Amino acid sequence: MAAHPFDPISDAEIRLTSKLIKNSYGKDQRIRFSQIDRQDPPKQDMLRYLEAEKAGKTLPQISRITYAFYYVGKDFYKALVNATYGHLITTQKQGKGVVGPMIGDDVAALEHLLTIHPIVQAEVKKLNLPPHIKVVCDPWIYGTDDDNEDRLLVQCYMYLANANHPESNHYSLPLKFSPVFESLTNEFVRMDYLPAGTDATSLQDTEPWTDFSLVEYHPDLNGEPLRPLKPLVVQQPEGPSFNVDGHKITWQGWEFTVVPNSREGFAIYDIHFKGRSVIYRLSLSEMTVPYGDPRAPYHRKQAFDLGDAGFGATGNSLKLGCDCLGVIKYFDCTITDSKGEPRLIPSTVCLHEQDGGLLYKHMNYRTGSAVTARRREFVVQTIATVANYEYLLNIIFDQAGEVRIHVRATGILSTMPIEKDKTVNWGTNVGPLVMAAYHQHLLSFRIDPAVDGYNNTVVYDDVERMPTGTDFNPYNVGFFTKRTVVDKPGYVEQSPFTNRSYKIINENVINQTTKRPVGYKILMPARQMLLADDDSFNAKRAHFATQQLWVTKYQDNELYAAGEFTNQSHVDTGLKEWAYRKENVRNSNPVVWATLGFTHIPRAEDFPVMPVETHEIGIVPHDFFEKNPALDVPQSTQSFNKSAYYPDSSKSDSCCKTAL
Amino acid sequence: MAAHPFDPISDAEIRLTSKLIKNSYGKDQRIRFSQIDRQDPPKQDMLRYLEAEKAGKTLPQISRITYAFYYVGKDFYKALVNATYGHLITTQKQGKGVVGPMIGDDVAALEHLLTIHPIVQAEVKKLNLPPHIKVVCDPWIYGTDDDNEDRLLVQCYMYLANANHPESNHYSLPLKFSPVFESLTNEFVRMDYLPAGTDATSLQDTEPWTDFSLVEYHPDLNGEPLRPLKPLVVQQPEGPSFNVDGHKITWQGWEFTVVPNSREGFAIYDIHFKGRSVIYRLSLSEMTVPYGDPRAPYHRKQAFDLGDAGFGATGNSLKLGCDCLGVIKYFDCTITDSKGEPRLIPSTVCLHEQDGGLLYKHMNYRTGSAVTARRREFVVQTIATVANYEYLLNIIFDQAGEVRIHVRATGILSTMPIEKDKTVNWGTNVGPLVMAAYHQHLLSFRIDPAVDGYNNTVVYDDVERMPTGTDFNPYNVGFFTKRTVVDKPGYVEQSPFTNRSYKIINENVINQTTKRPVGYKILMPARQMLLADDDSFNAKRAHFATQQLWVTKYQDNELYAAGEFTNQSHVDTGLKEWAYRKENVRNSNPVVWATLGFTHIPRAEDFPVMPVETHEIGIVPHDFFEKNPALDVPQSTQSFNKSAYYPDSSKSDSCCKTAL
Repeated sequence: MAAHPFDPISDAEIRLTSKLIKNSYGKDQRIRFSQIDRQDPPKQDMLRYLEAEKAGKTLPQISRITYAFYYVGKDFYKALVNATYGHLITTQKQGKGVVGPMIGDDVAALEHLLTIHPIVQAEVKKLNLPPHIKVVCDPWIYGTDDDNEDRLLVQCYMYLANANHPESNHYSLPLKFSPVFESLTNEFVRMDYLPAGTDATSLQDTEPWTDFSLVEYHPDLNGEPLRPLKPLVVQQPEGPSFNVDGHKITWQGWEFTVVPNSREGFAIYDIHFKGRSVIYRLSLSEMTVPYGDPRAPYHRKQAFDLGDAGFGATGNSLKLGCDCLGVIKYFDCTITDSKGEPRLIPSTVCLHEQDGGLLYKHMNYRTGSAVTARRREFVVQTIATVANYEYLLNIIFDQAGEVRIHVRATGILSTMPIEKDKTVNWGTNVGPLVMAAYHQHLLSFRIDPAVDGYNNTVVYDDVERMPTGTDFNPYNVGFFTKRTVVDKPGYVEQSPFTNRSYKIINENVINQTTKRPVGYKILMPARQMLLADDDSFNAKRAHFATQQLWVTKYQDNELYAAGEFTNQSHVDTGLKEWAYRKENVRNSNPVVWATLGFTHIPRAEDFPVMPVETHEIGIVPHDFFEKNPALDVPQSTQSFNKSAYYPDSSKSDSCCKTAL
Repeated sequence: MAAHPFDPISDAEIRLTSKLIKNSYGKDQRIRFSQIDRQDPPKQDMLRYLEAEKAGKTLPQISRITYAFYYVGKDFYKALVNATYGHLITTQKQGKGVVGPMIGDDVAALEHLLTIHPIVQAEVKKLNLPPHIKVVCDPWIYGTDDDNEDRLLVQCYMYLANANHPESNHYSLPLKFSPVFESLTNEFVRMDYLPAGTDATSLQDTEPWTDFSLVEYHPDLNGEPLRPLKPLVVQQPEGPSFNVDGHKITWQGWEFTVVPNSREGFAIYDIHFKGRSVIYRLSLSEMTVPYGDPRAPYHRKQAFDLGDAGFGATGNSLKLGCDCLGVIKYFDCTITDSKGEPRLIPSTVCLHEQDGGLLYKHMNYRTGSAVTARRREFVVQTIATVANYEYLLNIIFDQAGEVRIHVRATGILSTMPIEKDKTVNWGTNVGPLVMAAYHQHLLSFRIDPAVDGYNNTVVYDDVERMPTGTDFNPYNVGFFTKRTVVDKPGYVEQSPFTNRSYKIINENVINQTTKRPVGYKILMPARQMLLADDDSFNAKRAHFATQQLWVTKYQDNELYAAGEFTNQSHVDTGLKEWAYRKENVRNSNPVVWATLGFTHIPRAEDFPVMPVETHEIGIVPHDFFEKNPALDVPQSTQSFNKSAYYPDSSKSDSCCKTAL
């Protein structure tokens, strides 16, 4: 059976793509692949396909197109391959200054190289380490501070750890030197020395290290006696309420297709609820993590976790009974290695149901009778480990037509050395000799809507006081909503104090109850956006992170908020371009980009591993249905839920006491 | 055994209180009780008591003091009783204009009276209703629009419903007349006629009603075939991880005392984590719900759900297997009836554990080994039904020292009549002939802190850009925090774009890791506050709702944000007074009042019963512990959690494919 156009790239497609590319070059060329994945089908073609599929008609043929990012020597290329017909469409050498995503194999090789590299080892020797202490290196995204730099560079941050345990927390003891290497050639570029005081001065002389107080998180090492905890088991004795067919999920009136990929972790396509279309494509589009320590080389700490590394490529292999409870379905992610061979990362996406408390309740105080429904949720989850940090990305569906983007940040802070008894006001000491600089996490979510069809309009509503002292509002208590239509691409500023709410409406479909256009609302808390100055590289590279809500007009292949190539980029080639085109987005195909940001001021409790910090965006029906669409959810009852009383004697006779 | 000073009021104490009061008046007096409960013990005495209790020393004697609100004829009184020694301390007639909380029995009696009252029935007769349609009345808080009104009044909103089913949704068909009665005398005051067009005109002539299209929520009536859903069962085979001793809970390092009461639903006292004090008392303090429809009589729709009615008095009797899952402990609430006799509302507070997803995770990408802990949560929940609306109040504790205030609004919109084919920009049509006006829910939470002791300080931190173009910040990427100390009572404005965060710190205790004072952070989303004009009764009565964060200096008996008596109040006698005193709150005993507000623009989906709208405040340790306090939580494993694979064949061999 032919692959569905939405299906993820297959092993065969990765091999075909790399083979066609390799064949097009001479045998002696050193070709190293950075990323191979399938390209999204053109939307217009895909809409015809989905329409035919729903109608049970003959399906139009859509070629599967793959793309590859690769290096030939030090030159960076992008190629497109028609995997259906097996031919190379194009190979294009990218312009000066364009650098591709990190190559995982090369990073691992570099880590090994450092253990034998004479310059680095000469520096290590000066530390005069005891045998139970080892040096660990985290190769880091280099960032940008020079418009003329176009080598693929790696900033190697160095740490100490316990040599006797593989899970010792090296982030606890950062060293004060940091070699820079060129990735493709493994050439040593420069030794950076790190400031560790309260100013920008860095000591160029590495001295013997004496204090080895490590703050450990691993249960073998952290020294904490386990606290007793009894099991809380989620069981689904009759099985799950969802069905999986290939990559298509049906659950509680929802239908959608979940597809893992290298860059975004996964994307969700063609989302319908109760037979009506809501969203064509939903994904995490980019994330940038700029740090607020301005001292070299920290000023370059600005990772783009999707564009530089990839949420699929850094996806965790999720484990049964560990990362979620109940009955779990897993999807795998297949990426390329540097040679163009497929590499499977098993179970990077998990799908399951969870209880979400009550969905609605009303108790009639006259009769004491209550109508109560619980909120069952369906979760699509991936967890990415981007070196030190973990991100849990959940897309959560409920039974009343709501989609929630739920992000949890956890993992380990990226740390810097700090001298004894020093503190700074741009970072927090999280252990002896270790400081975690303030930083930001700015995630862009791309919502390609399809609210009852593909001609949609973005509007926002503010709530304002009515004019006071009028005949109509004599007691000065009235308020009303004022609607603004977004007809051109651009951004909309947050305005929490006017209760500004963003909606994607379909002006062509009127809700018969409210007499207003059908729509979905984007619920997003007001947040501090990018702090770096507008003229900084940080801001130029991540223009998307300067505002919380963007609107562009749909174009094929415009998927990533900061542009296709972010590693060591000098400028945002995504929203910075697309949001400033002069075109109409009203009653058209607008795309909404929502920036979920948080400024992270580390606290002592965030180390050595950070309790989750949770952030959400809601995508909520607003006049989409004519009434609550979840009235058909079964009532919450004891025969269904099987709860138990806390085992004490006082309760048993409570129901026999006088009732209200 | 003597009652603990924190124990809720007993049946005997209610009877003693009412008896002492009744005995103090002549036999022929008509005394009607509005509220009887115990008063909080004086804090200084209580601190000595708790200290002795922890040290196992002789406990100081603290008298149990009860209070009663009651009417003698039309005069409103407050009395205090020493329940330990059994004597009346004081009875005080309240000043002109002070009105007490609604008397539940009288409201019920009024509902019955209307079914026979000649003026009301004459109006009903004009409707010419068929036999299967009945009239229902919701007696409503009267609100305020006249400084000279001091009668306890009730605005009776009238509706139609299906006479053949007790759970028919009368909010679906509001009538256009609304009688006003005096509660204590049951005297008819006036017939109000309701505007139902797009202006303030109301038709004084009640006409025959012809359209009986009801939008029903009850499963018997809503006409929706049930959607299939399979059970998701939470089991705790080894029992819960919490222990209940009287009203004291111990769980996962936490210790606190949960006490139901008439007004607040419950309060939580003396909260400790890992042996260190965090909060002395935590409670919902007040809630106001003002409506934005300025037309008479709607301009008076401003309920104070705690002060006018009471969250305990309107508490739901929670049902096993319905309102929460797992192993549940319930507490009851005992209120007074109008005669001063105790009335038990069983199971108004439930206590249980729930799974909250992951608490933290880190995967070492070099070894593939992950450290993963799940977040077990402990929930204290109450659900209040204030006529049409339901509020779910959860206080949630986690294993890492965090307390979360979690509020869900559900239930049924308060509705107004609207003529066919009319719409307005201050309300949403939610069915035929029915409109739901825009309104706000503004909840005040009172946090009486005890961060490592009772001398605390409130501060707030803003995150700002460093000066640009300097030697220290040459790339213009630096940012830092700026701290402001709150040394006088007052409010602090929200400032989401500077990432303003509020902290309660103890300046006398320095965190040994960060070298900064220990503290807890108050996480609160920026929200639109009260929309009514500053000169309106709405604003004067609910001054607390004009700002999100208030600080006062602790005084005994200052518990309720809008003051002790809110029903038909003319002015806020709470924060409006306490937050403007000239006194020092630094390194003292500040009390923090957090207003959680949301402007509710009804959508079609909110009717006939509303899917929950969720709002949260976090109370999060910030440099309170020297590292993550949850490193001792057992790892999340399959042997503990017992999850299951989704039953398809594709999964079984996945672990045999090439691993990363």
